[in-house]
Amino acid sequence: MKRRDFLTTGAVGGAATALASPAIAQSNPVLQWRLQSSYPKSLDTIYGAAEVFAKAVLEASDGNFQIQVFAAGEIVPPLAIVEGVQSGTVEMGQTGSYFYIGLDPAFAFGTSLPFGPNTRFQQAWFNEAGGNDLFNEFLAGYNIHHLPLGGTGAQMGGWFRKEINTLADLKGLKMRIGGLSGMILQRLGLVPSQIAAGDVYPSLERGTIDAAEFVGPYDDEKLGLSKIAPYYYYPGFWEGAATLSLFIGLEKWNELPERYRSILTMAAGYAGALQLAKYDAQNAEALRRLVAGGAQLRVFPGDVLQASYDAANAFYAETSAKSASFKTLYDHQMKFRDDTLPWLQISEYAYDTLLLQASQGAK
Amino acid sequence: MKRRDFLTTGAVGGAATALASPAIAQSNPVLQWRLQSSYPKSLDTIYGAAEVFAKAVLEASDGNFQIQVFAAGEIVPPLAIVEGVQSGTVEMGQTGSYFYIGLDPAFAFGTSLPFGPNTRFQQAWFNEAGGNDLFNEFLAGYNIHHLPLGGTGAQMGGWFRKEINTLADLKGLKMRIGGLSGMILQRLGLVPSQIAAGDVYPSLERGTIDAAEFVGPYDDEKLGLSKIAPYYYYPGFWEGAATLSLFIGLEKWNELPERYRSILTMAAGYAGALQLAKYDAQNAEALRRLVAGGAQLRVFPGDVLQASYDAANAFYAETSAKSASFKTLYDHQMKFRDDTLPWLQISEYAYDTLLLQASQGAK
Repeated sequence: MKRRDFLTTGAVGGAATALASPAIAQSNPVLQWRLQSSYPKSLDTIYGAAEVFAKAVLEASDGNFQIQVFAAGEIVPPLAIVEGVQSGTVEMGQTGSYFYIGLDPAFAFGTSLPFGPNTRFQQAWFNEAGGNDLFNEFLAGYNIHHLPLGGTGAQMGGWFRKEINTLADLKGLKMRIGGLSGMILQRLGLVPSQIAAGDVYPSLERGTIDAAEFVGPYDDEKLGLSKIAPYYYYPGFWEGAATLSLFIGLEKWNELPERYRSILTMAAGYAGALQLAKYDAQNAEALRRLVAGGAQLRVFPGDVLQASYDAANAFYAETSAKSASFKTLYDHQMKFRDDTLPWLQISEYAYDTLLLQASQGAK
Repeated sequence: MKRRDFLTTGAVGGAATALASPAIAQSNPVLQWRLQSSYPKSLDTIYGAAEVFAKAVLEASDGNFQIQVFAAGEIVPPLAIVEGVQSGTVEMGQTGSYFYIGLDPAFAFGTSLPFGPNTRFQQAWFNEAGGNDLFNEFLAGYNIHHLPLGGTGAQMGGWFRKEINTLADLKGLKMRIGGLSGMILQRLGLVPSQIAAGDVYPSLERGTIDAAEFVGPYDDEKLGLSKIAPYYYYPGFWEGAATLSLFIGLEKWNELPERYRSILTMAAGYAGALQLAKYDAQNAEALRRLVAGGAQLRVFPGDVLQASYDAANAFYAETSAKSASFKTLYDHQMKFRDDTLPWLQISEYAYDTLLLQASQGAK
């Protein structure tokens, strides 16, 4: 009875005969796309997520939708994904949306804002609070469609040659830190600079910089900074929920059969969730190795955090006055953050508190 | 050059001709499966995830892999998913794995253990630390294949007619709470009982029970308990990371083309991530309504949490001595929890602390 009802259901009954229909050729075309990452293969968790994504799309499409993944710079410059996608040089790119704040500060919302929602609530904002739709309305002006592709979780505050005991210690401190974060910390006297990952070690060793932030334990370990800048600070409040982005050429996206749009969306959600899980497992192991190797964990002093928060809010107010796109997304995301904090506090945070207390009691 | 390399790549070149090959008929067969949930449609976030999952599979398979979703009891009894899948009455089910601890306590690991890893690290355990593979080794003995399908996040501790000020207040307290949690709290003098959701309100009103736990604000709100049992406790340490499960008949799973196994795995990951995001957004709103309607938030006293933790550990030691399957999974999961707690503490927890402090400072 139930099975008979099922077979007579319009949509499903129709689909059951689809193999014989010419429509399948339309919904299952052979496509060859190129995806370039802004990241090198050495950042294997991030780059690997692009590969997991492409493989998932290939499998779901029965081998018909083929996305070849290229590392940073193989086709277009690492930070030229917007231009690459707009010109059609690549159909899609994996990038950090905040690399493009020079075009409009609203690009930051694809990644995360300093003091923005944590990773879980950032995902809820994207997927269930209309955040990604709103971001895509903004990106339509750049002919781009956006799919979040996982993230790193809360990052570390980076490596410092000397301890930071008070806000005054930031004055004149030369730090490798970019984007919005650098602009905010500059207001506190810090001197931000953008330095390629491979140059961080010699720059710290030579004293060209006094501190450097990168990602988290697993990726940071590869740079080997603990011996020359042993103070490893947390929390990395400027990237509390750093999300990776897939940028897709909007016309390419719109031309896709609906089925392929579903597959891309699903594969990005799937690959993104696996990426975060991989980072969590890897970071925990790397942290232990780093501490065993001499890294000194330090929490940022309260006055540094408070002043950074105030500076961020001042920066957001000024930026909202200048960019209507930024203001729309900022108001929407921060209302969601504030509306959801009480629930975070009594659920996840209370449970985490319990686990941490129990674990300390057990020692 | 790059494009030419791409076209001559073996795997991709082969796939490009797949449309003309008879192999596609094998990898893309028309299948009609039935999925029954253990949950009613009224738990729309959980039930909805099964629908999102089935729709994603339908779309990715171009309408060929059709999974019809049935609510609790429509084909087999709500808590008979194991038997339903084993007998082939349904090909798959959405359930809470811990409903089946009567068969073996190791079934609890599909859901979560009291004081087990939090939601994010539970997912990392499943997906990146070998947890789901280990769980599937156990489930193979029951002819079941398991895919995690999202979760609720940390649940609430439930509704109490009177405040709990000390451990002694649990003695003789009649509470609607089931499974492992009930067995653990029973050791502290609490009297657990299993009551269907629809009977919770009259049971509390009549005084048949003194307290009841259910899920979290969004689902709890529908039961309307705040007027008769206004003290709403947290954290729900017995379900700190409650995961939902897809149980699939192992032979059915093994018979699937590899492509369909990939699609099911991907769709479960995708639908699960959306479910958690939906709960986070919904719970935050429902919590505000509940508090406005008179619910009194209370944190469990320290001695209750400590005694529960000790009772849980004693229970786990005894259960490990009785069930080798339980011991294998328990040792594996708890090592992962303990190994990852330091990373949780300095990353997500430190960032959450900062957000909560900033928000309180702003009030």
